[in-house]
Amino acid sequence: MQKISVGVLGATGMVGQQYIALLAQHPWFEVRYVAASPRSAGKPYHEAMTGRWQLAGAWGPSVGGLILEDANDLAAAVRASRQGRLGFVFSALEMEKEAVLSLEQAYAAQGIPVLSNASANRWTADVPMLIPEVNPQHTDIIPVQQQARGWKGGFIAVKPNCSIQSYLIPVYALLKAGYEVRRLFVTTLQSVSGSGYPGVPSLDIIDNVVPYIGGEEEKSEGEPLKILGQIRNGRIEPAAGPLISAHCNRVPVVNGHTACVSLEFGTKKPSIEEVKAIWTGFSSLPQEWDLPMAPKQPIILREEANRPQPRKDRDADKAMAITLGRIRPCPLFDLRFVGLSHNTIRGAAGGGVLNAELLKSQGYLG
Amino acid sequence: MQKISVGVLGATGMVGQQYIALLAQHPWFEVRYVAASPRSAGKPYHEAMTGRWQLAGAWGPSVGGLILEDANDLAAAVRASRQGRLGFVFSALEMEKEAVLSLEQAYAAQGIPVLSNASANRWTADVPMLIPEVNPQHTDIIPVQQQARGWKGGFIAVKPNCSIQSYLIPVYALLKAGYEVRRLFVTTLQSVSGSGYPGVPSLDIIDNVVPYIGGEEEKSEGEPLKILGQIRNGRIEPAAGPLISAHCNRVPVVNGHTACVSLEFGTKKPSIEEVKAIWTGFSSLPQEWDLPMAPKQPIILREEANRPQPRKDRDADKAMAITLGRIRPCPLFDLRFVGLSHNTIRGAAGGGVLNAELLKSQGYLG
Amino acid sequence: MQKISVGVLGATGMVGQQYIALLAQHPWFEVRYVAASPRSAGKPYHEAMTGRWQLAGAWGPSVGGLILEDANDLAAAVRASRQGRLGFVFSALEMEKEAVLSLEQAYAAQGIPVLSNASANRWTADVPMLIPEVNPQHTDIIPVQQQARGWKGGFIAVKPNCSIQSYLIPVYALLKAGYEVRRLFVTTLQSVSGSGYPGVPSLDIIDNVVPYIGGEEEKSEGEPLKILGQIRNGRIEPAAGPLISAHCNRVPVVNGHTACVSLEFGTKKPSIEEVKAIWTGFSSLPQEWDLPMAPKQPIILREEANRPQPRKDRDADKAMAITLGRIRPCPLFDLRFVGLSHNTIRGAAGGGVLNAELLKSQGYLG
Amino acid sequence: MQKISVGVLGATGMVGQQYIALLAQHPWFEVRYVAASPRSAGKPYHEAMTGRWQLAGAWGPSVGGLILEDANDLAAAVRASRQGRLGFVFSALEMEKEAVLSLEQAYAAQGIPVLSNASANRWTADVPMLIPEVNPQHTDIIPVQQQARGWKGGFIAVKPNCSIQSYLIPVYALLKAGYEVRRLFVTTLQSVSGSGYPGVPSLDIIDNVVPYIGGEEEKSEGEPLKILGQIRNGRIEPAAGPLISAHCNRVPVVNGHTACVSLEFGTKKPSIEEVKAIWTGFSSLPQEWDLPMAPKQPIILREEANRPQPRKDRDADKAMAITLGRIRPCPLFDLRFVGLSHNTIRGAAGGGVLNAELLKSQGYLG
Repeated sequence: MQKISVGVLGATGMVGQQYIALLAQHPWFEVRYVAASPRSAGKPYHEAMTGRWQLAGAWGPSVGGLILEDANDLAAAVRASRQGRLGFVFSALEMEKEAVLSLEQAYAAQGIPVLSNASANRWTADVPMLIPEVNPQHTDIIPVQQQARGWKGGFIAVKPNCSIQSYLIPVYALLKAGYEVRRLFVTTLQSVSGSGYPGVPSLDIIDNVVPYIGGEEEKSEGEPLKILGQIRNGRIEPAAGPLISAHCNRVPVVNGHTACVSLEFGTKKPSIEEVKAIWTGFSSLPQEWDLPMAPKQPIILREEANRPQPRKDRDADKAMAITLGRIRPCPLFDLRFVGLSHNTIRGAAGGGVLNAELLKSQGYLG
Repeated sequence: MQKISVGVLGATGMVGQQYIALLAQHPWFEVRYVAASPRSAGKPYHEAMTGRWQLAGAWGPSVGGLILEDANDLAAAVRASRQGRLGFVFSALEMEKEAVLSLEQAYAAQGIPVLSNASANRWTADVPMLIPEVNPQHTDIIPVQQQARGWKGGFIAVKPNCSIQSYLIPVYALLKAGYEVRRLFVTTLQSVSGSGYPGVPSLDIIDNVVPYIGGEEEKSEGEPLKILGQIRNGRIEPAAGPLISAHCNRVPVVNGHTACVSLEFGTKKPSIEEVKAIWTGFSSLPQEWDLPMAPKQPIILREEANRPQPRKDRDADKAMAITLGRIRPCPLFDLRFVGLSHNTIRGAAGGGVLNAELLKSQGYLG
Repeated sequence: MQKISVGVLGATGMVGQQYIALLAQHPWFEVRYVAASPRSAGKPYHEAMTGRWQLAGAWGPSVGGLILEDANDLAAAVRASRQGRLGFVFSALEMEKEAVLSLEQAYAAQGIPVLSNASANRWTADVPMLIPEVNPQHTDIIPVQQQARGWKGGFIAVKPNCSIQSYLIPVYALLKAGYEVRRLFVTTLQSVSGSGYPGVPSLDIIDNVVPYIGGEEEKSEGEPLKILGQIRNGRIEPAAGPLISAHCNRVPVVNGHTACVSLEFGTKKPSIEEVKAIWTGFSSLPQEWDLPMAPKQPIILREEANRPQPRKDRDADKAMAITLGRIRPCPLFDLRFVGLSHNTIRGAAGGGVLNAELLKSQGYLG
Repeated sequence: MQKISVGVLGATGMVGQQYIALLAQHPWFEVRYVAASPRSAGKPYHEAMTGRWQLAGAWGPSVGGLILEDANDLAAAVRASRQGRLGFVFSALEMEKEAVLSLEQAYAAQGIPVLSNASANRWTADVPMLIPEVNPQHTDIIPVQQQARGWKGGFIAVKPNCSIQSYLIPVYALLKAGYEVRRLFVTTLQSVSGSGYPGVPSLDIIDNVVPYIGGEEEKSEGEPLKILGQIRNGRIEPAAGPLISAHCNRVPVVNGHTACVSLEFGTKKPSIEEVKAIWTGFSSLPQEWDLPMAPKQPIILREEANRPQPRKDRDADKAMAITLGRIRPCPLFDLRFVGLSHNTIRGAAGGGVLNAELLKSQGYLG
């Protein structure tokens, strides 16, 4: 099978780098187009990244020689698309929200599918916000989106914020098993890589906690509702629940977001043992279709009293599995647990690659 | 005024050191008796502490030359008491719970008041568990305690766990202002000094979070009820509420416990502005009596979006003030906020000194 | 005595903040003029600093209300000077080197003495680079500087880089005692506050070391020679030795630079015991004149095997003392030791204040 | 090929765990025997390790079910050896030096080869201390050792301290290229995993540096001389040089030791470019024989100004490569550089496995 040519917009940033590292040996996709700010444009990727590459892993052999394009230069992208060097793009743009919004739409209008990590289009009503284990059927909105806008081939699909992975997938598994989740308290302890590079100054975080991350609580409370929503009348209508209260903290951890969760069921309440069985047995479309980036088991349970921990559990199953622990009753609600996921892989680039694999398998790409 | 002679049991441990540092220049108390495990006994304090003293501050000039006693050697304590070198003891013993329980009672039976940081006697029904701003009237149980046990002069009073300071004092201020608090979710991010020395291994906490602290959640949920309780029939009966769900985490911070709190009022609910006014204006007996260790203002509010932070706020007002921030509505309950307090000062030795000042002012010491 | 009015250029930056905190209760100086970039100009200081103030300590009561001036606006400074609100300035400007160079000279030309933390004028031949314990007599060049440039009242004096404090003061004590120091190897482990705010990204330093700090090794090797130099023919001629090889690392520490030093004496070599006696007994002009910011004892020796340590020793004697430990023979050179000093206090603002106290006592200020 | 059965003594400790993780999929060796302290003996390995396993990687499928033996129970080991379950042992014993010394000799006397990480036998004159890239020929002493002691089949070989890897391999490459290295200054910045678990208390190292590691400087100065020595008259005679001065620090890093090195050549001095060519081109027996654990290229050069860094470079080539950077002239000696190696893999268990592969290839094992 010939690999699909992929572009990365924002290729020099933190998430862009993570995409390039993850795709270095991908069986379906190959990075053949890299774009960033005008400042970097024109340089070979390896040259632009000297002293700037943040990851322990390396880029694919052919990526180093690619010449960085200006992400605003749509003509260059169209040219690459016609030459077969650009089948779709991952957008990891770090620009003003309005600029991202219109630039992503411009790519899609030119027939180039956009899989975005940016938050700009997350609340656009006909844009699916995907976690492949949870709402793979939301891609049904893509033809509607294309028709409404008169786009041919191009479309926009997005992934949600990194902070919600470690509780939304478990919540969905409970819903799927027939248990309503009415309300949910979550306090997150988020790693510094979540804010990119240079991101959090070391003076703010060594021997410290910052109990605030701008915009994060709103995303953590709101995005799950769209993901659990229904397509109706050409738009994704958010679900009515669960109602969520999120408190988001930054802690001195490099990678891995931890979430302390209390949840309240509806009238039907599973036992702790049932909950454990539901989570251990949970599997979904990415597992059924055996997508390359999918973890074998999306949810891993740890029985030790002091797990999950970011440094020990974040890399589980290609850093794509969610690790849960401390499953126990709650004195106020019904159930408490701790969830952990890798924020720049499951929560960002890895989640984006899994979205692409889903879309490819559904026939939307390539 | 002649200073009261004070003993420190567990004088070589972390909290014991903190007591000795805090009392180095205290206007009412002077450390003249230090005791620890049999292993250290017989050595001058300065010699025993070479390479073991953990604090930036220093001990008082006369403490270095004191000879360490064996804390189990009751006869030595009685001798010191008769010679006027021991008016009461701070107990910061790090022994098995049963051993602490009986040793503290043995000191009290010999007429030596015991102000304890240990958890052993916290749930003894006739032992007051004190936060001077919250329940100074619980010392009324002391004569009952003495009479029931036939003790003359001696008694036991304890301080609660370090994790509850940053939310119980604010909750009490609301109760005092006439607002019932029904339920409370709290997630703590606790510093490593909370587990003493050597305590948390660095391999467990650098670039990591440990989402579990043995016994801490039970204490965080239960102790507030006793502190808010009433003396009835010679015992302190715990209050019925607020019901608390606590999730306790260890984070890579040296000093200072952070608490993310959501609380639900009873039918009468104050506005956010009323809550702020209540907290800013809160003052209690220690402030009224101008006790030396009391913060001028027990609760400090910060209006910046990203405060309180452990490294920047833990030392506020001799590290005895509670700093609050991010006061805002909660989508599920009524009110959310972040609280912070210094765990080895307000939450341990400083709180113990304030207890002693209260007891002295009430006529129970010296 | 009426206090001298002081201005701080770069008042919103890290070192500027430290100046303002240190001068909050200074007996001789009072901050009455604050200036920063055009962006901040026009705002009251307290307003500009909301969410930006990095220190645990606070500013003086009258500083919050001062209106920030544009540091480039010389006319404003001259006006303040005429109105008695500006006796001299501390320059903590964070601008391009050339811009700092000319701006500092412009202030001096207007009759306003400049005490600078910037590196721009450190190698100007008639500008003294001062450590008051080492080369207080270098201020003799000030009249020469003023005459050569036709300045009246104004002059420039600078302080050296923060990295050299912990070995240059000990080396000077040995020189003063008659022992030539020929060669010196030093490896520094420097804290993140040394590069200001936002400075070092947390992604670069959590669970990491960065073995490079731009320009730092050159300063660490070169500046000691000027400080140990002689005034000759209207310029400060650098000393010929000791020859220094410096390796500078950034480590995950908030404050405090550690230096591992090996040094080689000339033909006359003191014993380890003599060295210890020289260092313990070392005292200089700031101690003799009892300057307010001077540590009682400039060099503190610790005998424990594992000291000095940044977190435990950086605050010794107002954070102005140098702490030394591990004094032992070197298998290659003659002597090894570890030195530690607080980089933003002794190495920056505190050192600057001490310079001002020296200059005031010598009659150059006020 | 049938795999050789391997035992791990000290299988529950930090280095023991690392051995078990590294051997999970080794092509030549299989762990079939695990032993630890009497306290753990009798339990299945998986049970003993619940909550104690420190690594992100996992043990091999058959290891979890192995019953832990008492490492002192020689009879059990002999039995296993006769049953073919124990071809040789890796010793990662954490006991008193004298106890390790005699226990390792007892195993060898019973015909069981011992490859040790402990320091006990490092200075035994007929025991080779091996870095396979440097002194593979030192295994020639094994028959001498066996004959002198009357051992059949059994022998002892050891690996050196973790701190010396990052400078001794580069120094050896220079020696091999014909350049004498006379003197060497090294300052190490060592990670906390170097002292095992629980090891360094977090209170000692968060926001701190500890400028002392007991015994480490002596090992860092002395062990290179034995490794560079010659077999003469049935013993390994240490080399006369290079003379080394080592200063060893503990820093808040999880894994990876950094070394800042200055070295002085003999009369013949290579240029910086020659040095780089020697290091880039360096290859030795493990590469020639393509041993499974050998890095393809033992020394990796980084040209960026700020590398190597522990978090980014420690895992290079299975964490077995040494990464060097900042190669530049030294104002006092001839050459300066920074070296980095992974202390628990290259410096401990990985180095031990490479030793075993060397010994197997030379015919001493299996």
